[in-house]
Amino acid sequence: MKILIVGGAGMIGRKLAERLAKEGSLNGRSIKSLTLYDVVEPVAPVGADFSVQTLIGDLPAEGEADRLMTDRPDVIFHLAAIVSGEAELDFDKGYRINLDGTRQLFDAVRRAGHAPRIVFTSSIAVFGAPFPDEIDDEFFTTPLTSYGTQKAIGELLLSDFTRKGIFDGVGIRLPTICVRPGKPNKAASGFFSNIIREPLVGEEAVLPVSEDVRHWHASPRSAIGFLLHAASLPGDEIGARRTLTMPGVSVTVGEQIAALRLMAGDDVAGLIRREPDQMIMDVVSGWPSNFNARRALGLGFKADVSFEEIIKAHIEDELDGKNHG
Amino acid sequence: MKILIVGGAGMIGRKLAERLAKEGSLNGRSIKSLTLYDVVEPVAPVGADFSVQTLIGDLPAEGEADRLMTDRPDVIFHLAAIVSGEAELDFDKGYRINLDGTRQLFDAVRRAGHAPRIVFTSSIAVFGAPFPDEIDDEFFTTPLTSYGTQKAIGELLLSDFTRKGIFDGVGIRLPTICVRPGKPNKAASGFFSNIIREPLVGEEAVLPVSEDVRHWHASPRSAIGFLLHAASLPGDEIGARRTLTMPGVSVTVGEQIAALRLMAGDDVAGLIRREPDQMIMDVVSGWPSNFNARRALGLGFKADVSFEEIIKAHIEDELDGKNHG
Repeated sequence: MKILIVGGAGMIGRKLAERLAKEGSLNGRSIKSLTLYDVVEPVAPVGADFSVQTLIGDLPAEGEADRLMTDRPDVIFHLAAIVSGEAELDFDKGYRINLDGTRQLFDAVRRAGHAPRIVFTSSIAVFGAPFPDEIDDEFFTTPLTSYGTQKAIGELLLSDFTRKGIFDGVGIRLPTICVRPGKPNKAASGFFSNIIREPLVGEEAVLPVSEDVRHWHASPRSAIGFLLHAASLPGDEIGARRTLTMPGVSVTVGEQIAALRLMAGDDVAGLIRREPDQMIMDVVSGWPSNFNARRALGLGFKADVSFEEIIKAHIEDELDGKNHG
Repeated sequence: MKILIVGGAGMIGRKLAERLAKEGSLNGRSIKSLTLYDVVEPVAPVGADFSVQTLIGDLPAEGEADRLMTDRPDVIFHLAAIVSGEAELDFDKGYRINLDGTRQLFDAVRRAGHAPRIVFTSSIAVFGAPFPDEIDDEFFTTPLTSYGTQKAIGELLLSDFTRKGIFDGVGIRLPTICVRPGKPNKAASGFFSNIIREPLVGEEAVLPVSEDVRHWHASPRSAIGFLLHAASLPGDEIGARRTLTMPGVSVTVGEQIAALRLMAGDDVAGLIRREPDQMIMDVVSGWPSNFNARRALGLGFKADVSFEEIIKAHIEDELDGKNHG
């Protein structure tokens, strides 16, 4: 089993590589090699008993995606993307990486002709307000951002290329990843993680929206679980509609804070400073907040059971199990 | 008012140009010039009291779309496309014209910077089975053909570029055009027109599906009406969801034949030869058959009232009012 992770230097790519190194196999087949590709040098996971190659490159550039097909990877995780905030600010860059890059990769797979499994990370940003209370698997995609548009186009290409037998694609629409470790990135959704991550290490965090804002979350641990499960699903169980909304936890910001208070105490929860930001409130009001991920659940994808579990996963995976509160 | 028709040599482009020549104005503004652009030389309409330019070119080629922006057209009708059957057989050509061509045009408009109205013809092929009995304005787009995929991508780009203020786009999903004049093209839907057009001039026509097949039709005359109305609609009445399913007439093949019999007699209807074709039946079974086009009706788009009226329009517009039966 040869695996390629496009976008291997990102948070999800790194965690996926670490998990693969730990497991040593995917879908019952032992891993022979792993290639991590990104625009900055990816970090090879420690302790892998298979060969790991790290490559730097510019995915949409001529011939670049073909280079990645040289050893005909059996499973390709396509995680590379310019995030929502940046794609909105830099129109050209967003289209170049998120659309052209994806298309170059898909076309290179077509030229290679070996029909691998491709797992493509899409996003709930493919949906645009107004929404029903709960978005089901048949709700239409009317994105209100360039990022969401580019992801929705990726979903369409994924289905068409799969239908044509060029590869065997599975798209997964990830919930907002929370608690996102490390430093804030340019995603407008950053505060959902900041208000948990920063207080847990004794730092202040800014909450720019009101506590009744509801959102759809998955822990990084769940996200990696989704990717591995997507890589292992038999294609004929998925059918023609190749992209699935992943299950998640729907909570309000108030419920997030209550969970933090429960697990880490009043002093920690007290480190959240309310500083309303109209621009962020406007962006967030266009986002979906709750889903019925029936298809994905039926196919065996597993979500976190509660926001407390999401905080617990963060403390275990990122803080060595220590609650610094 | 300067108008550009991309795809000006096709059946709809030609009829649109003729109608513009006859009217002399669009949305209350007199037409100063009309440019017809296509891969084969378009025919200039007779009797126009404005300047008409015909251009041949390859839309997705480098610099080609920029050339079309030289005189900064106020309204652009983007009708150019490889039809469904051909896009399915020639994967590269379909993506090159239907996706790359559309994107080149939209990017050229962005570079020109004058934010014109763009009317983009999409298709009900953006929908893929299974369907509800009646597809409403919120049904999701899960195309089952490359053509439908390319049109759905065009819709997404149209909305995002409009949201960014690059142009003011309106997408219209045309029903199957019936009765399509002239010779059959490569569209798998050709027989819906053939079984009316050919018998009306005393020729046999082949019906490859059963009479209970239901489909969604609009006359060429209605289609031109949709295009002119779309060019004139105030953008703020449309909202963020820029593509509209056009109203049409939902009839079974049996009802089409009954209408033909009513208007032209038994002998004419008797020229239809049943010759079931499993491949065409399979393709057609994946097509939608009935819609509720509430949004478009609310915005003033007008459909034919019956299939009899569709036949009448064909006799008037294509057969000089003579029923040759």
